[in-house]
Formats: sequence, structure tokens, C-alpha cells
Amino acid sequence: MGVKLGILGLGTVGTGTVQLLQDSAGRHPLLQEIEIYRVGVRSLDKPRAVELSTEVLTTDLESIVNDPAVDIVVEVMGGLEPARSLILKALSNGKHVVTANKAAIARFGAEIFTTANQAGVYVMLEAAVGGGIPVIQPLKQSLSVNRIHTITGIVNGTTNYILTRMQTEGSNFNDVLADAQRLGYAEADPTADVDGLDAADKIAILASLGFGGRINLQDVYTEGIRQVSKTDIAYAEKLGFVIKLLAIAKRDTPASPLSVRVHPTLVPQAHPLASINGVYNAILVEGEPVGQVMFFGPGAGAGATASAVTSDILNLVAVLKTNTAVANPLLACAHQEYCQIAPMAELITRFYARFLTNDQPGVIGKLGTCFGNYGVSLESIVQTGFQGKLAEIVVVTHDVREGNFRQALAEIRDLSAIESIPSLLRVL
Amino acid sequence: MGVKLGILGLGTVGTGTVQLLQDSAGRHPLLQEIEIYRVGVRSLDKPRAVELSTEVLTTDLESIVNDPAVDIVVEVMGGLEPARSLILKALSNGKHVVTANKAAIARFGAEIFTTANQAGVYVMLEAAVGGGIPVIQPLKQSLSVNRIHTITGIVNGTTNYILTRMQTEGSNFNDVLADAQRLGYAEADPTADVDGLDAADKIAILASLGFGGRINLQDVYTEGIRQVSKTDIAYAEKLGFVIKLLAIAKRDTPASPLSVRVHPTLVPQAHPLASINGVYNAILVEGEPVGQVMFFGPGAGAGATASAVTSDILNLVAVLKTNTAVANPLLACAHQEYCQIAPMAELITRFYARFLTNDQPGVIGKLGTCFGNYGVSLESIVQTGFQGKLAEIVVVTHDVREGNFRQALAEIRDLSAIESIPSLLRVL
Repeated sequence: MGVKLGILGLGTVGTGTVQLLQDSAGRHPLLQEIEIYRVGVRSLDKPRAVELSTEVLTTDLESIVNDPAVDIVVEVMGGLEPARSLILKALSNGKHVVTANKAAIARFGAEIFTTANQAGVYVMLEAAVGGGIPVIQPLKQSLSVNRIHTITGIVNGTTNYILTRMQTEGSNFNDVLADAQRLGYAEADPTADVDGLDAADKIAILASLGFGGRINLQDVYTEGIRQVSKTDIAYAEKLGFVIKLLAIAKRDTPASPLSVRVHPTLVPQAHPLASINGVYNAILVEGEPVGQVMFFGPGAGAGATASAVTSDILNLVAVLKTNTAVANPLLACAHQEYCQIAPMAELITRFYARFLTNDQPGVIGKLGTCFGNYGVSLESIVQTGFQGKLAEIVVVTHDVREGNFRQALAEIRDLSAIESIPSLLRVL
Repeated sequence: MGVKLGILGLGTVGTGTVQLLQDSAGRHPLLQEIEIYRVGVRSLDKPRAVELSTEVLTTDLESIVNDPAVDIVVEVMGGLEPARSLILKALSNGKHVVTANKAAIARFGAEIFTTANQAGVYVMLEAAVGGGIPVIQPLKQSLSVNRIHTITGIVNGTTNYILTRMQTEGSNFNDVLADAQRLGYAEADPTADVDGLDAADKIAILASLGFGGRINLQDVYTEGIRQVSKTDIAYAEKLGFVIKLLAIAKRDTPASPLSVRVHPTLVPQAHPLASINGVYNAILVEGEPVGQVMFFGPGAGAGATASAVTSDILNLVAVLKTNTAVANPLLACAHQEYCQIAPMAELITRFYARFLTNDQPGVIGKLGTCFGNYGVSLESIVQTGFQGKLAEIVVVTHDVREGNFRQALAEIRDLSAIESIPSLLRVL
């Protein structure tokens, strides 16, 4: 086994991460070089969704960050303390750190990154913003040559879920919040979400990366969604807007001060962020010369967040393996084999087909019978009109094997009633 | 000066890349360590949009890939040969390569990556798919822990532009194509775009990265958009679909063969890809455990493509600088200074405000006057109805300085006609 992990916390994200690491078949081969060496928990007796040997589990979290055998500390316990102290201790001890802790990074980023730089190790935080959406790494690497001027995000799933339901149902904030709490989309104490504090943490982190400077969290203007009424949502809609809780960092010119803020905002309906609904997150980055780039995906959830945490771990493993003799396995091409490609006849898809037919009685019945003979089940079959003397019939199938559909079509082409098949398209 | 570039080609993308590198203020500081050392062109006499000294320009491209001083070769000449041979020679000579050449990678990827692996150097190709959208690096790094099951992309801007216009205008393919050619959105010979060949190159590259295997380009089923008629677009719309040229790579189970294909497709209107219009590109990646993640942005253009090419260069510079003593500067935190944050009073934004007023004549006029006194220009002011005995008035402003707006509002609050201001929201 190669790289040893010390994981702090085994809640939702920690469990998701362990599950991902324990189920590595079909994922990146580098995952197999990772050992779950220690996992720090509050109680050893609690029933768990993952199996870990008793030597791995410990309640002594301090011992993990001080263990010389641990290469990477994965902080997924959340909260401010002892998370902050454990992260700092791990870094001082020369260990790389992966964290999903937006609150700790937004408040203690300065001392955490200073400590990391002094120790020559990395702090990875893809999971801190946007759940599974790759946005930290793109900002640090793929977009870093741009002069970023605006980052605009829907970065809190709970508030976006509430606003989306208020919009679609015409409901009040309090009613939707209560229902969201019942369904598990909002916490019993919803303050961090609905008052915009979580979004403020996240935009502070994004702004810091995009604009290359530290951000004092108290400088982030923060306004939540409690005062958004169904009346305003309705008026906004009439005026061509939807209301979203946006987190915005913006610099008008390279010399201007930065504006960093979280507040409910009327967004024009044609704007890319207007159609981000429910618990989804999206981050729109605007810069020169790239223009507008948007990242969209699930902003929370055990699996999505575990994807981000584990990708950070994998990046560190790649760095640890890289030296002058060995290339970074995530940058080099790792595969030599060819993929096995399925023939199109085996494709399972829906089809749309348009037929021009002689206007005989029973044509629709004949089409239906032919399709049926080959197991092609139809979603709809409609005579849409006439083109000259020919009747036009549009068919949409359910999922079918393309080979079966083609066989049915060959038979249909031979029917005397069928003049031509001008269109044949697949349906997603 | 640190890292020496040899750039092959000074067309649209090459020129954009040189412009970006020559204008490094306000971008990542690492850019300043890059030297444009040689640029290979077809003719020395052609007028250029960039200034380069005569020692830098050469028509002898072979000499660039053989020059021991060159660290990174940037291939932005396009076409199959001599691009392929020059890339292979550069790699054999131990140089890292950055390329935007989807056609060459899709056809000669096997020998190119084999040569790179043997030489222990990297081939970077972010610009080959999706222009400025970060998608190659996220697939290689941020999403690599997932079991990817589907990649679905709108990866050709020309065809998406044509289909979008056919949809919105109800026009024919041939008419829109001719107009797109006139406007520069389609080439004089549109074959590679409208017949799906360009999209096939790109999905072959994405599939290879997402599914960890090589792809034979001739295995990619490819169907273009010439046969898509305005009739079908209209029927599709009635059925709840839009028609898009999709590039799809999909594996149903980890053991299944891969389906890789490009064809016009009916996409349900609520699908995230349905609203990607015009020359924009988007790539939807679905995997376990991350779920659905989408990347959206400009799929082409000098600036966007230069952003991708230069970010690849920067990543290689970071790798070249990294050793046991020096951390990768793109992964480490590079800034210590705090950003200067603008006070909210200085924010320039639009506002939405809702007033409850006593139903006196002239209230709208008084509101307008108050706003006018503080330079707040109004986009609309509407009496929307009544709440009990109170009239409700909704105001949307043009861009205003928040401080001015707040001053006007303070004065308005004191008006005897104003009962309350239940809502105050910013407008994007």
C-alpha cells in the first residue's frame, strides 16, 4: 500500500469518502494505492454504514495528525474547533490536508495557508464550494491565465430549493422552509443557509482564488432570503425575472476594489443562472479573454462531496508519486488499450420518425403493427397534417434496440401506403 | 526569463495566445516567467496583429522542435501534417507539448501519447474540446475518481448556431447555413462542422479521457445536421423537444461496450442541454457518485481558445518549477495580501423596490421626484394593485450607486404618503 490517509470525521461526507475508496473497481487505478490508515470518530460504538477494522478507528484525533506514518489528513468533521487546530497541527507536521470545511477556510484561511506554505505542503478544498462541481481546481489551474472580473454563484442548495418551490408553487417562505426541514433539505436550525452565511463563506473562498488575495469574511455583505415574499416573486416574474440568492464577487477594473456580497437578486429570465433550480448549484466565471464559463452540478450530498474530497486526495497522491523520474500520473496518459465500442444496432434509444403516406384508412394501424412485430413500443403516433395529397404521420418510440427499429423500418418502407420517410432522428 | 516556448503557427489561436502572454499584468504571476522564444510561421512578411522581434519569427518549424533551448512546444497550426510529425519530433526531443489540434489528437492520439510516455513528457490539450471551457483537466483530475457512465456534449458551435437560428426563426438549413457563412460563423467548406466530423473528433477525445481507453475514430458513428428540416424542428417543439447535434459517449454498465456517436437528437426542453443556444458549447458528465455535472462556455474564438492553450502552458510551467524543495505554484496558495473590498454604498446595481402607499393623487410623481433628486434613474414604476386600502407600487431602477439609492429611500420613507417599503431587492 502506498499513501496513508488519516480521516478526521465519519459523518455523511466521511462515510461517502470511505465508501468511494473501498469501492475502487472501475475508477482511476491510482485509488488502489491509497490506504485508509486511521479514521478519527467521536464514539467507537456507533453503528456505521462502512466496515473499518478496530485498529483503524480511534477517538484520539490528535494522534492522527501527529502520526508520522500519515501522509494526508482528510478533515471532514466540519465545525470550527477542533477542526482548525487539527488542520494546523497536521500541516505543521508536514502532512498535506484535504478539507471540505468552508467555514474554517473562510475564517482561518490566512493562518491555514501560511502554515501550509511554511511547511511546503498543500491544502486542497474542492469540496468546500459547490459539492461535486469542479470549480476550485478550474479557478486555480484552468482559468488562472484570465483576468477574472466577475464570479456569480448559486452556491447554497437549501435556499435555491426554497426559492424554486416558492416560485413554482406560489408558496410563502415559512411554509416551504418548514416542508424543506421535514424533507431533510433544510437543517433544524436553518440560519447558516437562509441568512446567507454559508454562501458568504463560499464566495469569500471563490473570490480569494479568482482575484488572488485574501478576503476578510466580515467584509462580505450578507443578506438572506427570509424577507423574500411570494408577492415579490410573482411581480419579478411579470417583469421578466426570477429571484435567486446570488453570491457575487466583482471587480470593475483591475485597479478597482472588489465587491463581495450575498443577497437575493432579481435575475433576468434569459440569464444562464436563472434556470438553475432546486438543490443544484452553479458558478458563472467571467474573465478576459475567456468570456463566460459556467460550472453546474449537485451542490451537496454525500456522493457528490465525496467525489470532490477523493479527487483532491487523488491529486495529492499523484503529486506524491511525481518525481524527476516519474511523471504525474494524472497529467500523463495512463491508458494504452482501446475501448470496446458497441455497434449502433445494439444502441438502446428513443426515435422520432416522420412518414409521408397515401391517405388510406388504417395506415396508422399498419405502422403500429409493423413496429409491434419487432418489439418497438410507441410513445405517440400522430397524424400531424397533409403535405399536398400525402398525409404526414409523426411517431415517437419508447426506448428500443436500434437494430429492431431498423428492421421494422425496412418492412414499413415496403408498405404500399408509405410514400417516404423524410425524417428519422434519435431522442434523448 | 524562465521557460522557453516554441510556438508553431500564428493564425487566430496562435495570435490570441501571443497577445495573452504579452499582456500579463493582472494575470497569474507565473506568466511572467514565460519567454516567447521562437514562433514558426509560413511567411515572414505577412502583416501581424502582434509584435514579435525578427529573431523570434522563423519559417523553419523543424528547427523549433529540434532546438535544445525550447522547453515547451505549442502547436497551434492545425491540420494533420506537418502538425503530427512536428508534435512527435518535439516529444521525442523531450519537450512538453500543448496542442489545440483535435483532428490530430483524435487520429494520432495513440502514437502521440505513446511517444510522450516514452519520453516522460506531457501532452496538454485543453483547447482541443470546448474552446475556453475547462473540461479536459476536470475529466483528468477533478472527476477521475468517478465511474463515468455518460458524457453528452454540444461541442460544435457552428451547428448549434445553425440549429438555434432554425428553431427561433423557423428557417431552412440551407438559408441559415448561407447566412452563417456570410457572418463568419461557418466555413466556406462547412463539411467538418455540419457533417459532424469535428464533433466526432471531440467526443473521441472526451470518451478516451472519461472511460480510460483509446478510441478508434472510425468506430464513432457520425451523422450531421443537413437532413434536419424546419418541419421536424416545429414538430419536435410541439412534442416538448428541441433538436441539438449531440456528441455522446455512454457505457451502461462497467462491463458493457462503449457507445460513441454524433447525431442530431431530440432533447427534452427541461434537459440542461436544451437551453444551450448559439455558438455556446456545453458538456454534461454523468458519473457515480458525483451525479450530473455540466461545463458551459464559449466553444471557440481566439480569446477563449487562447485561455485554454495558455492555461496548459501555465500548468506545464508549474510542473517544471516543482521539485522536492519547491511546491507546485498552482496548487499552493500564492497570495498573502488581503483584497481591498469596496463598501456597499459604492456598489453600482439596479434595484427593485415595493412600496405600500396611501392612495393619494401624485404619489408616483413624488417617488419619481425623490429618486431624481439623488440621481436615481428609473426603468419602470408601476402601481400593481391594492393591499387593503393601501396602493402597491413597484419600482425598478436603472444602474445606480447604492449610496444614492439609499439616500433617496431615506427621504421617501419620510413622505406622509408612504406607509411602508416591504421589499427591497437588487437586480442583476
